[in-house]
Amino acid sequence: MTVADDAEQFLNADRYAQENGIELIEAGAGHARVAMQVQPKHLNSHGTVHGGALFTLADCAFAIASNSHGIPAAAINASISYLTAAREGRLIAVAEEFAKSKRLASYTVIITDEHENRIAIFQGMVFRKQPRDDGEKDRRRP
Amino acid sequence: MTVADDAEQFLNADRYAQENGIELIEAGAGHARVAMQVQPKHLNSHGTVHGGALFTLADCAFAIASNSHGIPAAAINASISYLTAAREGRLIAVAEEFAKSKRLASYTVIITDEHENRIAIFQGMVFRKQPRDDGEKDRRRP
Amino acid sequence: MTVADDAEQFLNADRYAQENGIELIEAGAGHARVAMQVQPKHLNSHGTVHGGALFTLADCAFAIASNSHGIPAAAINASISYLTAAREGRLIAVAEEFAKSKRLASYTVIITDEHENRIAIFQGMVFRKQPRDDGEKDRRRP
Amino acid sequence: MTVADDAEQFLNADRYAQENGIELIEAGAGHARVAMQVQPKHLNSHGTVHGGALFTLADCAFAIASNSHGIPAAAINASISYLTAAREGRLIAVAEEFAKSKRLASYTVIITDEHENRIAIFQGMVFRKQPRDDGEKDRRRP
Repeated sequence: MTVADDAEQFLNADRYAQENGIELIEAGAGHARVAMQVQPKHLNSHGTVHGGALFTLADCAFAIASNSHGIPAAAINASISYLTAAREGRLIAVAEEFAKSKRLASYTVIITDEHENRIAIFQGMVFRKQPRDDGEKDRRRP
Repeated sequence: MTVADDAEQFLNADRYAQENGIELIEAGAGHARVAMQVQPKHLNSHGTVHGGALFTLADCAFAIASNSHGIPAAAINASISYLTAAREGRLIAVAEEFAKSKRLASYTVIITDEHENRIAIFQGMVFRKQPRDDGEKDRRRP
Repeated sequence: MTVADDAEQFLNADRYAQENGIELIEAGAGHARVAMQVQPKHLNSHGTVHGGALFTLADCAFAIASNSHGIPAAAINASISYLTAAREGRLIAVAEEFAKSKRLASYTVIITDEHENRIAIFQGMVFRKQPRDDGEKDRRRP
Repeated sequence: MTVADDAEQFLNADRYAQENGIELIEAGAGHARVAMQVQPKHLNSHGTVHGGALFTLADCAFAIASNSHGIPAAAINASISYLTAAREGRLIAVAEEFAKSKRLASYTVIITDEHENRIAIFQGMVFRKQPRDDGEKDRRRP
Protein backbone atom coordinates (compact mmCIF):
# COMPACT_ATOMS: atom_id res chain seq x y z
CA MET A 1 0.00 0.00 0.00
CA THR A 2 1.13 3.55 -0.66
CA VAL A 3 1.38 6.20 2.03
CA ALA A 4 -1.81 7.76 0.61
CA ASP A 5 -3.72 4.44 0.85
CA ASP A 6 -2.55 4.03 4.44
CA ALA A 7 -3.62 7.58 5.20
CA GLU A 8 -7.05 6.98 3.67
CA GLN A 9 -7.51 3.85 5.77
CA PHE A 10 -6.25 5.63 8.89
CA LEU A 11 -8.71 8.51 8.42
CA ASN A 12 -11.61 6.16 7.64
CA ALA A 13 -10.98 4.36 10.93
CA ASP A 14 -11.03 7.67 12.82
CA ARG A 15 -14.60 8.11 14.09
CA TYR A 16 -14.08 11.66 15.29
CA ALA A 17 -12.57 12.76 11.96
CA GLN A 18 -15.59 11.21 10.17
CA GLU A 19 -17.97 12.91 12.60
CA ASN A 20 -16.33 16.24 11.78
CA GLY A 21 -16.45 15.66 8.02
CA ILE A 22 -12.70 15.68 7.51
CA GLU A 23 -11.47 14.44 4.11
CA LEU A 24 -8.03 13.49 2.92
CA ILE A 25 -6.70 15.49 -0.02
CA GLU A 26 -3.17 14.16 -0.16
CA ALA A 27 -0.50 12.48 1.96
CA GLY A 28 3.14 11.51 1.65
CA ALA A 29 6.12 10.79 3.90
CA GLY A 30 5.98 13.44 6.64
CA HIS A 31 3.20 15.53 5.20
CA ALA A 32 -0.56 15.61 4.74
CA ARG A 33 -3.31 17.86 3.43
CA VAL A 34 -6.90 17.53 4.65
CA ALA A 35 -10.10 19.56 4.24
CA MET A 36 -13.27 20.30 6.22
CA GLN A 37 -16.37 21.91 4.76
CA VAL A 38 -17.74 24.27 7.43
CA GLN A 39 -21.19 23.17 8.60
CA PRO A 40 -23.52 24.75 11.18
CA LYS A 41 -22.46 22.05 13.66
CA HIS A 42 -18.87 23.39 13.61
CA LEU A 43 -19.86 26.83 14.91
CA ASN A 44 -19.53 28.34 18.38
CA SER A 45 -21.85 30.80 20.12
CA HIS A 46 -20.32 33.70 18.15
CA GLY A 47 -21.23 32.04 14.83
CA THR A 48 -17.60 31.40 13.91
CA VAL A 49 -15.85 28.05 13.56
CA HIS A 50 -15.19 26.65 17.06
CA GLY A 51 -11.59 26.54 18.26
CA GLY A 52 -12.12 22.84 18.92
CA ALA A 53 -13.17 22.24 15.29
CA LEU A 54 -10.14 24.12 13.95
CA PHE A 55 -7.89 22.18 16.31
CA THR A 56 -9.48 18.89 15.21
CA LEU A 57 -8.88 19.70 11.55
CA ALA A 58 -5.21 20.52 12.22
CA ASP A 59 -4.86 17.49 14.49
CA CYS A 60 -6.03 15.14 11.73
CA ALA A 61 -3.41 16.49 9.30
CA PHE A 62 -0.82 16.14 12.08
CA ALA A 63 -1.88 12.54 12.85
CA ILE A 64 -1.65 11.48 9.21
CA ALA A 65 1.73 13.17 8.64
CA SER A 66 3.22 11.78 11.86
CA ASN A 67 1.96 8.24 11.19
CA SER A 68 3.23 8.26 7.59
CA HIS A 69 6.59 6.58 8.32
CA GLY A 70 5.18 3.18 9.28
CA ILE A 71 5.97 3.74 12.99
CA PRO A 72 2.97 4.52 15.21
CA ALA A 73 3.14 8.06 16.54
CA ALA A 74 1.16 9.27 19.56
CA ALA A 75 0.54 13.00 19.98
CA ILE A 76 2.06 14.31 23.20
CA ASN A 77 1.35 17.95 22.81
CA ALA A 78 0.20 20.68 20.49
CA SER A 79 -0.29 24.42 20.44
CA ILE A 80 -2.50 26.50 18.19
CA SER A 81 -2.67 30.24 17.48
CA TYR A 82 -5.81 31.68 15.91
CA LEU A 83 -5.31 34.63 13.58
CA THR A 84 -8.59 35.10 11.70
CA ALA A 85 -12.06 33.82 12.49
CA ALA A 86 -13.54 31.45 9.88
CA ARG A 87 -17.28 31.35 9.20
CA GLU A 88 -17.94 29.29 6.11
CA GLY A 89 -16.51 27.51 3.10
CA ARG A 90 -13.88 24.84 2.89
CA LEU A 91 -10.95 24.94 5.27
CA ILE A 92 -7.65 23.29 4.39
CA ALA A 93 -4.98 22.07 6.81
CA VAL A 94 -1.48 21.27 5.59
CA ALA A 95 0.94 19.46 7.91
CA GLU A 96 4.70 19.43 7.33
CA GLU A 97 7.33 17.63 9.36
CA PHE A 98 9.83 19.95 10.97
CA ALA A 99 12.20 17.26 12.27
CA LYS A 100 12.20 13.76 13.69
CA SER A 101 14.51 11.74 15.90
CA LYS A 102 14.25 8.11 16.99
CA ARG A 103 11.60 8.83 19.62
CA LEU A 104 10.16 12.25 18.83
CA ALA A 105 9.00 14.24 15.85
CA SER A 106 7.56 17.71 15.35
CA TYR A 107 5.06 19.06 12.80
CA THR A 108 3.72 22.45 11.76
CA VAL A 109 0.16 22.66 10.45
CA ILE A 110 -1.29 25.70 8.68
CA ILE A 111 -5.04 26.22 8.25
CA THR A 112 -6.27 28.42 5.42
CA ASP A 113 -9.71 29.15 4.02
CA GLU A 114 -10.64 28.94 0.36
CA HIS A 115 -9.51 32.52 -0.22
CA GLU A 116 -6.08 31.59 1.17
CA ASN A 117 -6.61 33.62 4.32
CA ARG A 118 -4.42 32.28 7.10
CA ILE A 119 -6.78 31.14 9.82
CA ALA A 120 -4.53 29.36 12.34
CA ILE A 121 -1.13 27.82 12.90
CA PHE A 122 -0.58 24.63 14.90
CA GLN A 123 2.58 23.02 16.21
CA GLY A 124 2.48 19.40 17.36
CA MET A 125 4.87 16.82 18.77
CA VAL A 126 4.60 13.03 18.78
CA PHE A 127 6.22 10.19 20.64
CA ARG A 128 7.22 7.45 18.19
CA LYS A 129 6.66 3.92 19.39
CA GLN A 130 9.65 1.61 19.02
CA PRO A 131 8.77 -1.70 17.39
CA ARG A 132 9.98 -4.57 19.57
CA ASP A 133 12.51 -7.05 18.23
CA ASP A 134 10.18 -9.99 18.67
CA GLY A 135 8.10 -9.06 15.67
CA GLU A 136 5.32 -7.49 17.74
CA LYS A 137 2.36 -6.60 15.58
CA ASP A 138 1.48 -2.96 15.54
CA ARG A 139 -2.10 -2.82 16.72
CA ARG A 140 -2.63 0.58 15.20
CA ARG A 141 -1.89 -0.16 11.56
CA PRO A 142 -3.62 -3.49 10.92
CA MET B 1 -28.63 36.71 35.64
CA THR B 2 -25.95 34.92 37.56
CA VAL B 3 -22.61 33.89 36.07
CA ALA B 4 -23.90 30.29 36.00
CA ASP B 5 -27.05 31.28 34.07
CA ASP B 6 -24.92 33.20 31.59
CA ALA B 7 -22.63 30.20 31.23
CA GLU B 8 -25.57 27.90 30.62
CA GLN B 9 -26.90 30.21 27.93
CA PHE B 10 -23.45 30.58 26.39
CA LEU B 11 -22.98 26.81 26.20
CA ASN B 12 -26.48 26.23 24.83
CA ALA B 13 -25.75 28.65 22.00
CA ASP B 14 -22.53 26.78 21.17
CA ARG B 15 -23.44 24.31 18.41
CA TYR B 16 -20.11 22.52 18.48
CA ALA B 17 -20.25 22.04 22.26
CA GLN B 18 -23.77 20.60 21.88
CA GLU B 19 -22.61 18.35 19.05
CA ASN B 20 -19.86 17.03 21.32
CA GLY B 21 -22.22 16.47 24.25
CA ILE B 22 -20.54 18.94 26.57
CA GLU B 23 -22.47 19.83 29.74
CA LEU B 24 -21.96 22.60 32.25
CA ILE B 25 -21.39 21.48 35.83
CA GLU B 26 -20.55 24.78 37.42
CA ALA B 27 -19.27 28.28 36.61
CA GLY B 28 -18.21 31.39 38.50
CA ALA B 29 -16.04 34.47 37.97
CA GLY B 30 -12.89 33.20 36.21
CA HIS B 31 -13.62 29.50 36.50
CA ALA B 32 -15.73 26.74 35.00
CA ARG B 33 -16.24 23.00 35.21
CA VAL B 34 -17.72 21.00 32.31
CA ALA B 35 -18.16 17.32 31.49
CA MET B 36 -18.29 15.07 28.44
CA GLN B 37 -19.51 11.48 28.43
CA VAL B 38 -17.23 9.54 26.08
CA GLN B 39 -19.18 8.17 23.11
CA PRO B 40 -17.98 6.09 20.15
CA LYS B 41 -18.06 9.24 18.01
CA HIS B 42 -15.31 10.79 20.16
CA LEU B 43 -12.78 8.06 19.38
CA ASN B 44 -9.81 8.06 16.99
CA SER B 45 -8.44 5.16 14.95
CA HIS B 46 -6.63 3.79 18.04
CA GLY B 47 -9.91 3.53 19.95
CA THR B 48 -8.95 6.28 22.39
CA VAL B 49 -10.55 9.69 22.81
CA HIS B 50 -9.41 11.90 19.91
CA GLY B 51 -7.02 14.75 20.70
CA GLY B 52 -9.52 17.08 19.04
CA ALA B 53 -12.31 15.93 21.37
CA LEU B 54 -10.12 16.43 24.46
CA PHE B 55 -9.11 19.85 23.19
CA THR B 56 -12.77 20.73 22.54
CA LEU B 57 -13.74 19.75 26.07
CA ALA B 58 -10.94 21.90 27.56
CA ASP B 59 -11.72 24.72 25.16
CA CYS B 60 -15.34 24.89 26.32
CA ALA B 61 -14.28 25.21 29.98
CA PHE B 62 -11.78 27.89 28.90
CA ALA B 63 -14.43 29.80 26.89
CA ILE B 64 -16.88 29.83 29.79
CA ALA B 65 -14.25 30.90 32.35
CA SER B 66 -12.83 33.62 30.11
CA ASN B 67 -16.27 35.01 29.21
CA SER B 68 -17.42 35.05 32.86
CA HIS B 69 -16.49 38.69 33.58
CA GLY B 70 -19.07 40.28 31.27
CA ILE B 71 -16.40 41.28 28.72
CA PRO B 72 -16.28 39.18 25.54
CA ALA B 73 -13.08 37.19 25.32
CA ALA B 74 -11.74 35.69 22.08
CA ALA B 75 -9.27 32.81 22.27
CA ILE B 76 -5.96 33.73 20.66
CA ASN B 77 -4.01 30.63 21.46
CA ALA B 78 -3.87 27.44 23.43
CA SER B 79 -1.55 24.53 24.09
CA ILE B 80 -2.39 21.07 25.32
CA SER B 81 -0.25 18.22 26.70
CA TYR B 82 -1.66 14.70 26.76
CA LEU B 83 -0.54 12.48 29.62
CA THR B 84 -2.85 9.47 29.63
CA ALA B 85 -5.13 8.12 26.92
CA ALA B 86 -8.85 8.12 27.81
CA ARG B 87 -11.18 5.45 26.47
CA GLU B 88 -14.51 5.68 28.23
CA GLY B 89 -16.53 7.19 31.03
CA ARG B 90 -17.15 10.77 31.94
CA LEU B 91 -14.37 13.29 31.45
CA ILE B 92 -14.25 16.49 33.47
CA ALA B 93 -12.49 19.74 32.53
CA VAL B 94 -11.84 22.43 35.13
CA ALA B 95 -10.69 25.89 34.00
CA GLU B 96 -9.07 28.36 36.38
CA GLU B 97 -7.93 31.89 35.61
CA PHE B 98 -4.20 32.41 36.06
CA ALA B 99 -4.20 36.18 35.55
CA LYS B 100 -5.90 38.91 33.57
CA SER B 101 -4.99 42.39 32.44
CA LYS B 102 -7.10 44.95 30.57
CA ARG B 103 -6.64 43.25 27.21
CA LEU B 104 -5.40 39.72 27.92
CA ALA B 105 -6.14 36.87 30.27
CA SER B 106 -4.73 33.38 30.74
CA TYR B 107 -6.36 30.14 31.92
CA THR B 108 -5.23 26.65 32.89
CA VAL B 109 -7.59 23.73 32.24
CA ILE B 110 -7.13 20.25 33.66
CA ILE B 111 -8.92 17.20 32.25
CA THR B 112 -9.45 14.18 34.49
CA ASP B 113 -11.43 10.98 34.10
CA GLU B 114 -13.90 9.63 36.63
CA HIS B 115 -11.12 7.82 38.50
CA GLU B 116 -9.31 11.16 38.86
CA ASN B 117 -6.58 10.14 36.43
CA ARG B 118 -4.99 13.21 34.92
CA ILE B 119 -5.61 12.99 31.19
CA ALA B 120 -4.42 16.34 29.83
CA ILE B 121 -3.45 19.89 30.74
CA PHE B 122 -4.36 22.90 28.61
CA GLN B 123 -3.18 26.50 28.74
CA GLY B 124 -5.15 29.17 26.91
CA MET B 125 -4.99 32.90 26.35
CA VAL B 126 -7.75 35.31 25.34
CA PHE B 127 -7.94 38.80 23.95
CA ARG B 128 -10.56 40.80 25.87
CA LYS B 129 -12.69 43.11 23.78
CA GLN B 130 -12.94 46.67 25.08
CA PRO B 131 -16.50 47.97 25.28
CA ARG B 132 -16.75 51.28 23.47
CA ASP B 133 -17.81 54.41 25.34
CA ASP B 134 -20.84 54.95 23.14
CA GLY B 135 -22.78 52.21 24.83
CA GLU B 136 -22.11 49.67 22.10
CA LYS B 137 -24.14 46.53 22.62
CA ASP B 138 -22.11 43.44 23.04
CA ARG B 139 -23.41 41.11 20.36
CA ARG B 140 -22.09 38.10 22.16
CA ARG B 141 -23.90 38.43 25.48
CA PRO B 142 -27.41 39.58 24.49
CA MET C 1 21.86 12.78 49.35
CA THR C 2 18.46 14.40 49.65
CA VAL C 3 16.47 15.72 46.70
CA ALA C 4 17.44 19.24 47.79
CA ASP C 5 21.17 18.39 47.82
CA ASP C 6 20.86 16.85 44.37
CA ALA C 7 19.03 19.94 43.15
CA GLU C 8 21.72 22.21 44.56
CA GLN C 9 24.41 20.19 42.80
CA PHE C 10 22.41 20.13 39.58
CA LEU C 11 21.98 23.92 39.60
CA ASN C 12 25.63 24.53 40.49
CA ALA C 13 26.67 22.49 37.45
CA ASP C 14 24.39 24.56 35.21
CA ARG C 15 26.57 27.31 33.74
CA TYR C 16 23.68 29.20 32.17
CA ALA C 17 21.70 29.22 35.42
CA GLN C 18 24.78 30.57 37.23
CA GLU C 19 25.31 33.19 34.52
CA ASN C 20 21.71 34.32 35.04
CA GLY C 21 22.05 34.45 38.83
CA ILE C 22 19.43 31.78 39.52
CA GLU C 23 19.32 30.43 43.08
CA LEU C 24 17.61 27.40 44.53
CA ILE C 25 15.12 28.11 47.31
CA GLU C 26 13.66 24.67 47.76
CA ALA C 27 13.17 21.33 45.96
CA GLY C 28 11.36 18.06 46.57
CA ALA C 29 9.96 15.16 44.56
CA GLY C 30 8.25 16.73 41.53
CA HIS C 31 8.57 20.33 42.61
CA ALA C 32 11.05 23.19 42.86
CA ARG C 33 11.23 26.85 43.76
CA VAL C 34 13.98 29.12 42.42
CA ALA C 35 14.68 32.86 42.45
CA MET C 36 16.39 35.45 40.25
CA GLN C 37 17.27 38.97 41.36
CA VAL C 38 16.60 41.25 38.38
CA GLN C 39 19.82 42.90 37.19
CA PRO C 40 20.39 45.38 34.35
CA LYS C 41 21.76 42.53 32.24
CA HIS C 42 18.32 40.81 32.30
CA LEU C 43 16.55 43.71 30.59
CA ASN C 44 15.41 44.10 26.99
CA SER C 45 15.28 47.26 24.88
CA HIS C 46 12.03 48.33 26.61
CA GLY C 47 13.69 48.24 30.04
CA THR C 48 11.64 45.25 31.17
CA VAL C 49 12.86 41.76 31.98
CA HIS C 50 13.61 39.95 28.71
CA GLY C 51 11.28 37.10 27.71
CA GLY C 52 14.38 34.92 27.43
CA ALA C 53 15.35 35.68 31.03
CA LEU C 54 11.84 34.90 32.31
CA PHE C 55 11.82 31.68 30.29
CA THR C 56 15.26 30.74 31.67
CA LEU C 57 14.07 31.26 35.24
CA ALA C 58 11.01 29.06 34.66
CA ASP C 59 13.09 26.51 32.78
CA CYS C 60 15.47 26.08 35.72
CA ALA C 61 12.59 25.36 38.11
CA PHE C 62 11.19 22.92 35.51
CA ALA C 63 14.58 21.17 35.09
CA ILE C 64 15.01 20.70 38.83
CA ALA C 65 11.46 19.44 39.37
CA SER C 66 11.60 17.05 36.41
CA ASN C 67 15.02 15.65 37.41
CA SER C 68 13.95 15.14 41.03
CA HIS C 69 12.93 11.48 40.66
CA GLY C 70 16.41 10.08 40.00
CA ILE C 71 15.64 9.50 36.31
CA PRO C 72 17.21 11.96 33.89
CA ALA C 73 14.59 14.08 32.17
CA ALA C 74 15.20 16.00 28.95
CA ALA C 75 12.94 18.93 28.07
CA ILE C 76 11.11 18.34 24.81
CA ASN C 77 8.93 21.38 24.76
CA ALA C 78 7.61 24.32 26.69
CA SER C 79 5.21 27.20 26.30
CA ILE C 80 5.09 30.47 28.21
CA SER C 81 2.45 33.19 28.48
CA TYR C 82 3.45 36.63 29.74
CA LEU C 83 0.85 38.54 31.75
CA THR C 84 2.66 41.43 33.40
CA ALA C 85 6.02 43.00 32.58
CA ALA C 86 8.61 42.77 35.37
CA ARG C 87 11.22 45.51 35.86
CA GLU C 88 13.02 44.93 39.13
CA GLY C 89 13.21 43.04 42.39
CA ARG C 90 13.36 39.34 43.03
CA LEU C 91 11.39 37.01 40.79
CA ILE C 92 10.29 33.59 42.02
CA ALA C 93 9.47 30.54 39.87
CA VAL C 94 7.59 27.59 41.34
CA ALA C 95 7.37 24.33 39.36
CA GLU C 96 4.80 21.65 40.13
CA GLU C 97 4.41 18.29 38.45
CA PHE C 98 1.08 17.84 36.70
CA ALA C 99 1.50 14.16 35.82
CA LYS C 100 4.11 11.64 34.82
CA SER C 101 4.12 8.34 32.95
CA LYS C 102 7.00 5.96 32.26
CA ARG C 103 8.40 8.07 29.45
CA LEU C 104 6.85 11.51 29.77
CA ALA C 105 6.06 14.06 32.46
CA SER C 106 4.49 17.50 32.49
CA TYR C 107 5.08 20.53 34.76
CA THR C 108 3.48 23.91 35.33
CA VAL C 109 5.70 26.80 36.45
CA ILE C 110 4.40 30.10 37.80
CA ILE C 111 6.55 33.23 37.98
CA THR C 112 5.65 35.93 40.49
CA ASP C 113 7.41 39.08 41.63
CA GLU C 114 8.00 40.04 45.25
CA HIS C 115 4.59 41.70 45.46
CA GLU C 116 3.00 38.42 44.36
CA ASN C 117 2.03 39.81 40.98
CA ARG C 118 1.65 37.00 38.48
CA ILE C 119 4.23 37.66 35.78
CA ALA C 120 4.12 34.53 33.60
CA ILE C 121 2.93 30.94 33.38
CA PHE C 122 4.99 28.17 31.78
CA GLN C 123 4.06 24.62 30.81
CA GLY C 124 6.83 22.13 30.06
CA MET C 125 7.12 18.49 29.06
CA VAL C 126 10.07 16.12 29.46
CA PHE C 127 11.13 12.82 28.01
CA ARG C 128 12.32 10.52 30.80
CA LYS C 129 15.35 8.42 29.97
CA GLN C 130 14.96 4.71 30.76
CA PRO C 131 17.88 3.28 32.71
CA ARG C 132 19.24 0.22 30.89
CA ASP C 133 19.21 -3.17 32.59
CA ASP C 134 22.98 -3.54 32.39
CA GLY C 135 23.58 -1.13 35.20
CA GLU C 136 24.40 1.80 32.94
CA LYS C 137 25.67 4.76 34.91
CA ASP C 138 23.60 7.87 34.63
CA ARG C 139 26.02 10.49 33.45
CA ARG C 140 23.83 13.29 34.62
CA ARG C 141 23.51 12.47 38.31
CA PRO C 142 27.05 11.38 39.30
CA MET D 1 16.34 54.49 8.51
CA THR D 2 15.90 51.10 6.91
CA VAL D 3 14.31 48.14 8.68
CA ALA D 4 17.81 46.65 9.07
CA ASP D 5 19.15 49.84 10.72
CA ASP D 6 16.16 49.86 13.08
CA ALA D 7 16.75 46.20 13.89
CA GLU D 8 20.45 46.84 14.59
CA GLN D 9 19.55 49.69 16.95
CA PHE D 10 16.83 47.60 18.61
CA LEU D 11 19.25 44.72 19.24
CA ASN D 12 22.01 47.04 20.49
CA ALA D 13 19.60 48.45 23.08
CA ASP D 14 18.72 44.94 24.26
CA ARG D 15 21.00 44.23 27.21
CA TYR D 16 20.04 40.57 27.51
CA ALA D 17 20.67 39.94 23.79
CA GLN D 18 24.10 41.56 24.17
CA GLU D 19 24.82 39.51 27.28
CA ASN D 20 24.01 36.37 25.30
CA GLY D 21 26.18 37.38 22.34
CA ILE D 22 23.33 37.56 19.85
CA GLU D 23 24.15 39.23 16.51
CA LEU D 24 21.89 40.45 13.74
CA ILE D 25 22.49 38.87 10.34
CA GLU D 26 19.59 40.32 8.42
CA ALA D 27 16.12 41.85 8.91
CA GLY D 28 13.23 42.96 6.75
CA ALA D 29 9.47 43.53 7.04
CA GLY D 30 8.17 40.57 9.06
CA HIS D 31 11.36 38.56 9.16
CA ALA D 32 14.75 38.41 10.86
CA ARG D 33 17.84 36.22 11.04
CA VAL D 34 20.15 36.28 14.07
CA ALA D 35 23.12 34.21 15.24
CA MET D 36 24.68 33.12 18.53
CA GLN D 37 28.13 31.58 18.85
CA VAL D 38 27.87 28.87 21.54
CA GLN D 39 30.08 29.69 24.53
CA PRO D 40 30.64 27.73 27.75
CA LYS D 41 28.30 30.15 29.54
CA HIS D 42 25.38 28.96 27.36
CA LEU D 43 25.61 25.36 28.58
CA ASN D 44 23.48 23.46 31.09
CA SER D 45 24.55 20.73 33.50
CA HIS D 46 24.46 18.14 30.66
CA GLY D 47 26.99 20.16 28.63
CA THR D 48 24.44 21.04 25.96
CA VAL D 49 23.05 24.47 25.10
CA HIS D 50 20.53 25.45 27.79
CA GLY D 51 16.86 25.56 26.79
CA GLY D 52 16.80 29.13 28.08
CA ALA D 53 19.65 30.12 25.74
CA LEU D 54 17.94 28.51 22.73
CA PHE D 55 14.68 30.23 23.66
CA THR D 56 16.51 33.57 24.03
CA LEU D 57 18.06 33.22 20.58
CA ALA D 58 14.66 32.47 19.01
CA ASP D 59 13.01 35.21 21.05
CA CYS D 60 15.41 37.84 19.69
CA ALA D 61 14.64 36.87 16.08
CA PHE D 62 10.92 36.98 16.98
CA ALA D 63 11.25 40.43 18.64
CA ILE D 64 13.04 41.92 15.63
CA ALA D 65 10.60 40.44 13.10
CA SER D 66 7.53 41.49 15.09
CA ASN D 67 8.82 45.04 15.65
CA SER D 68 9.75 45.49 12.00
CA HIS D 69 6.51 47.20 10.92
CA GLY D 70 7.00 50.41 12.90
CA ILE D 71 4.33 49.43 15.46
CA PRO D 72 5.62 48.27 18.85
CA ALA D 73 4.86 44.62 19.44
CA ALA D 74 4.90 42.99 22.88
CA ALA D 75 5.32 39.21 23.14
CA ILE D 76 2.32 37.59 24.79
CA ASN D 77 3.27 33.99 24.44
CA ALA D 78 5.60 31.51 22.84
CA SER D 79 6.16 27.79 22.61
CA ILE D 80 9.32 25.92 21.72
CA SER D 81 9.99 22.29 20.79
CA TYR D 82 13.52 20.93 21.05
CA LEU D 83 14.51 18.28 18.51
CA THR D 84 18.29 17.94 18.71
CA ALA D 85 20.70 18.99 21.45
CA ALA D 86 23.28 21.60 20.38
CA ARG D 87 26.76 21.66 21.91
CA GLU D 88 28.95 24.04 19.95
CA GLY D 89 29.38 26.22 16.89
CA ARG D 90 27.21 28.99 15.58
CA LEU D 91 23.45 28.72 15.92
CA ILE D 92 21.13 30.57 13.57
CA ALA D 93 17.51 31.59 14.24
CA VAL D 94 15.24 32.64 11.39
CA ALA D 95 11.88 34.27 12.18
CA GLU D 96 9.09 34.49 9.63
CA GLU D 97 5.70 36.13 10.07
CA PHE D 98 2.80 33.72 9.73
CA ALA D 99 0.02 36.33 9.82
CA LYS D 100 -0.88 39.63 11.40
CA SER D 101 -4.09 41.45 12.20
CA LYS D 102 -4.62 44.93 13.66
CA ARG D 103 -3.86 43.80 17.21
CA LEU D 104 -2.10 40.45 16.95
CA ALA D 105 0.61 38.79 14.90
CA SER D 106 2.20 35.35 14.87
CA TYR D 107 5.74 34.23 13.98
CA THR D 108 7.56 30.93 13.47
CA VAL D 109 11.25 30.75 14.33
CA ILE D 110 13.55 27.90 13.31
CA ILE D 111 16.92 27.30 14.96
CA THR D 112 19.59 25.40 13.04
CA ASP D 113 23.26 24.72 13.70
CA GLU D 114 26.04 25.33 11.21
CA HIS D 115 25.55 21.87 9.69
CA GLU D 116 21.90 22.77 9.05
CA ASN D 117 20.66 20.36 11.70
CA ARG D 118 17.26 21.43 12.95
CA ILE D 119 17.67 22.17 16.64
CA ALA D 120 14.36 23.71 17.69
CA ILE D 121 11.15 25.29 16.44
CA PHE D 122 9.48 28.24 18.17
CA GLN D 123 6.06 29.80 17.70
CA GLY D 124 5.38 33.24 19.13
CA MET D 125 2.52 35.71 19.28
CA VAL D 126 2.59 39.47 19.89
CA PHE D 127 0.12 42.12 20.87
CA ARG D 128 0.54 45.18 18.62
CA LYS D 129 0.21 48.52 20.33
CA GLN D 130 -2.15 50.97 18.63
CA PRO D 131 -0.59 54.40 18.11
CA ARG D 132 -2.86 57.10 19.57
CA ASP D 133 -4.28 59.81 17.35
CA ASP D 134 -2.59 62.59 19.27
CA GLY D 135 0.80 61.86 17.77
CA GLU D 136 2.01 59.94 20.80
CA LYS D 137 5.71 59.19 20.61
CA ASP D 138 6.58 55.55 20.62
CA ARG D 139 8.83 55.15 23.62
CA ARG D 140 10.26 51.94 22.27
CA ARG D 141 11.65 53.10 18.94
CA PRO D 142 13.40 56.43 19.79
